[in-house]
Amino acid sequence: MFPRNAWYVACTPDEVASTAHGALGRQICGQRMVFYRGPDDVMTALEDFCPHRGAPLSLGRVCDGKLVCGYHGLEMGCDGKTVAMPGQRVRGFPAIRAYPVLERYGFVWVWPGDPAQASPDKLPALQWADNPEWAYGGGLYHIGCDYRLMIDNLMDLTHETYVHASSIGQKEIDESPCTTRATADEVITSRFMNGVTAPPFWQTALRMNGLPTDQPVDRWQVCHFTPPSHVMIEVGVALAGHGGVEAPADKKASAIVVDFITPETDTSIWYFWGMARHFKPQDNSLTVQIREGQGRIFAEDREMLELQQRNLSSHPGRDLLKLNIDAGGVQSRRLIDRWLADERAAPSMHETAPSAT
Amino acid sequence: MFPRNAWYVACTPDEVASTAHGALGRQICGQRMVFYRGPDDVMTALEDFCPHRGAPLSLGRVCDGKLVCGYHGLEMGCDGKTVAMPGQRVRGFPAIRAYPVLERYGFVWVWPGDPAQASPDKLPALQWADNPEWAYGGGLYHIGCDYRLMIDNLMDLTHETYVHASSIGQKEIDESPCTTRATADEVITSRFMNGVTAPPFWQTALRMNGLPTDQPVDRWQVCHFTPPSHVMIEVGVALAGHGGVEAPADKKASAIVVDFITPETDTSIWYFWGMARHFKPQDNSLTVQIREGQGRIFAEDREMLELQQRNLSSHPGRDLLKLNIDAGGVQSRRLIDRWLADERAAPSMHETAPSAT
Amino acid sequence: MFPRNAWYVACTPDEVASTAHGALGRQICGQRMVFYRGPDDVMTALEDFCPHRGAPLSLGRVCDGKLVCGYHGLEMGCDGKTVAMPGQRVRGFPAIRAYPVLERYGFVWVWPGDPAQASPDKLPALQWADNPEWAYGGGLYHIGCDYRLMIDNLMDLTHETYVHASSIGQKEIDESPCTTRATADEVITSRFMNGVTAPPFWQTALRMNGLPTDQPVDRWQVCHFTPPSHVMIEVGVALAGHGGVEAPADKKASAIVVDFITPETDTSIWYFWGMARHFKPQDNSLTVQIREGQGRIFAEDREMLELQQRNLSSHPGRDLLKLNIDAGGVQSRRLIDRWLADERAAPSMHETAPSAT
Repeated sequence: MFPRNAWYVACTPDEVASTAHGALGRQICGQRMVFYRGPDDVMTALEDFCPHRGAPLSLGRVCDGKLVCGYHGLEMGCDGKTVAMPGQRVRGFPAIRAYPVLERYGFVWVWPGDPAQASPDKLPALQWADNPEWAYGGGLYHIGCDYRLMIDNLMDLTHETYVHASSIGQKEIDESPCTTRATADEVITSRFMNGVTAPPFWQTALRMNGLPTDQPVDRWQVCHFTPPSHVMIEVGVALAGHGGVEAPADKKASAIVVDFITPETDTSIWYFWGMARHFKPQDNSLTVQIREGQGRIFAEDREMLELQQRNLSSHPGRDLLKLNIDAGGVQSRRLIDRWLADERAAPSMHETAPSAT
Repeated sequence: MFPRNAWYVACTPDEVASTAHGALGRQICGQRMVFYRGPDDVMTALEDFCPHRGAPLSLGRVCDGKLVCGYHGLEMGCDGKTVAMPGQRVRGFPAIRAYPVLERYGFVWVWPGDPAQASPDKLPALQWADNPEWAYGGGLYHIGCDYRLMIDNLMDLTHETYVHASSIGQKEIDESPCTTRATADEVITSRFMNGVTAPPFWQTALRMNGLPTDQPVDRWQVCHFTPPSHVMIEVGVALAGHGGVEAPADKKASAIVVDFITPETDTSIWYFWGMARHFKPQDNSLTVQIREGQGRIFAEDREMLELQQRNLSSHPGRDLLKLNIDAGGVQSRRLIDRWLADERAAPSMHETAPSAT
Repeated sequence: MFPRNAWYVACTPDEVASTAHGALGRQICGQRMVFYRGPDDVMTALEDFCPHRGAPLSLGRVCDGKLVCGYHGLEMGCDGKTVAMPGQRVRGFPAIRAYPVLERYGFVWVWPGDPAQASPDKLPALQWADNPEWAYGGGLYHIGCDYRLMIDNLMDLTHETYVHASSIGQKEIDESPCTTRATADEVITSRFMNGVTAPPFWQTALRMNGLPTDQPVDRWQVCHFTPPSHVMIEVGVALAGHGGVEAPADKKASAIVVDFITPETDTSIWYFWGMARHFKPQDNSLTVQIREGQGRIFAEDREMLELQQRNLSSHPGRDLLKLNIDAGGVQSRRLIDRWLADERAAPSMHETAPSAT
């Protein structure tokens, strides 16, 4: 169960560009889609299903903005209507679904639900993206779990102490209470740890930023969940006593952990992770170094999430605890449930079959 | 859904000979069978199920024409009746199914349905087999698709332009209309392309046959479907203006693409492919060379067919188009459906359990 | 269908010790369990399910006899009750199941059923274990079959002639009738072969024991099945005419083949196999050599059992034969069925959910 009337990160433009023939197949929210650059290089998303014989269009090739099916040469247009096919009149061919798609912030966003409700206004605002004061690096993992388990994971960072003990974990995370508040559109869980020793990852960040690593720091973690499944986490350390998250730039290293969680099926996700940092944005080698470190850290979650999913699938009715540390995840699920209820209350055209042209 | 009262290619004699102990296990039309040489070296096909404890007989060994179970030594006869077992009286042992089997044309043929209806007369006639004027080479692929998708594939060769662009595809295939006609027993789809450039595969064939490759050719493709799932395709090129398919032997290179498609399950097949050529039949190195080239070409279909199957399995009720180019496949399915209806109308003994001896 | 109110071998202490962090996850009788050394190094078995969010506890680490969940640091006690969790009051946390567990004879034994019925008295008595006159070596295989197929295998050793022809098989096994008798608690199948040639495995054993290998021997196999799924087989050879199994120690080589068969699921097992020998117990290199030989031999059963299982799963209603050689397996299944009927008649608390602490 996932919201459908929402923008999800589908892929990066690089992923499309690096395919052999310009088309990328990917299942999103249970729907197989193909992504490619249509006319004027505009990113396009269609059902990955040729109306002729059901071949996946993602095995085709892009020619002059048309997606040519790799089986019998049907030329598909960016609106899901067949443009041409050798030796055929295509006017009566059934259309396939065309998905609203946007290229923004370095990602390709897709709207799996009712196209009439899709609007660029509903994209999240990302202050760090397309902003020269920030640098971004990230990656993609495929993980076999319900997308909500990953939201839980990110909205309760006490797991860092255990899952990521050698990099970003430290006992003070556990010991510092967190505060959770929810609005109609967002859930925020905050934790502030003052006068602590920076863990290895942050010592490296301090050093990269020209700051001493042998002094106590004030560390913060402010997790923002917004539906359907985005989690942005303000993280950082400042030399102790300079105001923590409000410290001047030359006293801190700060960043935003970026998490776009896109359901593939009910029990698998495309997990787009990354870090936007607010220091030394021009230093590309630093970007690479941080991405590799973050990639190693985030890979540590995978086994845990997949085996947690296996356990929950074996015990579908079993109640889990909802502790104070779980408030972020619990409140996030509440927002999701409200979103899902709204979708059910207002059935949209996306449930109906595409009509013939 | 596949016809059962029909001869299917099960394997080649070489496959049986190359097993460790003389017995080959293979699932055909949903039934697990074991193939081995029984008394007088006669090819034999039985249920792959020992009546003692259900062990697969294909793990056994063949001794003096008897198949000895590899678990506890039961000796099975070629009629599905137990011959002997150490220390046992076997008279009351239940029989297992024995399948009508024939060794002909270099293949082992099996009849999965009612034995009473099996007759050598119902084998297809293959003029190229056991004929010194022809040479044959081929191979076997296992592909995860409904057998009818492979029939569609072979009865609509416009896919060559896209799937096999670098070998046998050329744009003129798409541009030349095909003609399909059906009789009660056969579907024939023909395409003739006159005055075209030979594609790479056929240039090689011309050269092998001592013919020039820099001249326009007349190319033909005549696909013959016969139930349950055989497709023979007359293919070739002749120097232009010499009569095409009717040109004299020294003006053309011609062959028959041989396709025996044996269902394993509803969504997987044993695909026996090959080429019978009508030139230089004694040239074994040429046979090897052609087989390798054809093997590479036919491997290109596999990913397409398996992902097409995945798409169709996800959308079981979705209508596909039936264009003129699909007429060959559509008519072939019509013959198959009629065959299936006939089988349902006349239930045969193969549905009943084997009786005790 | 397997008995639950019984002791099963779950693992060896070495397996627990060789995990990265002291906890071993293993599914037994359909239940995922975690094994670790709790307070005072006492072996402990719990549900592999953290009551907080369902993470597998086997991904955690053992600290001072407590199992600390690897996700958020919940500390689990050996009784299934949460001991502590950073920043939490744990009194109201639901308990997880704690399984009766014993460390005995070099194995870890677990009782998957009603804890109230578990008692050390119900462990089998193994005269060869913890006994300086005997030496033991063995291993563990995971096999995809119903545990009863492995019992059948071991209670009918005529399969040695076919499956293990090059090591312990010989035609006299087939030719010598076996005798089966059953009590309320045990099934015994015996076979005695006098004046035969020792097969290769036993020739080696004779040589190791300082006995000639060129003389006829009396060979015996006495298989003991005890519920739920233990099979101990007295095996050996004595120089012919010295009393066979009763021959003095300097005229024979004798051993017990040890088989503990622990269901993982309905169609998979953890198979603990080994050999306890009653000669040269101090010779560790001999133990290694025998274990390697036995490991090779017992690996030969795997393919047979897994494909037999596949056949039986495809033909669930099909009757199998019950010959005299099958009497051991048939009688063993009868004991199991009685055990299962008893369990159904007296439903135990293990079916109810664990209560909160």
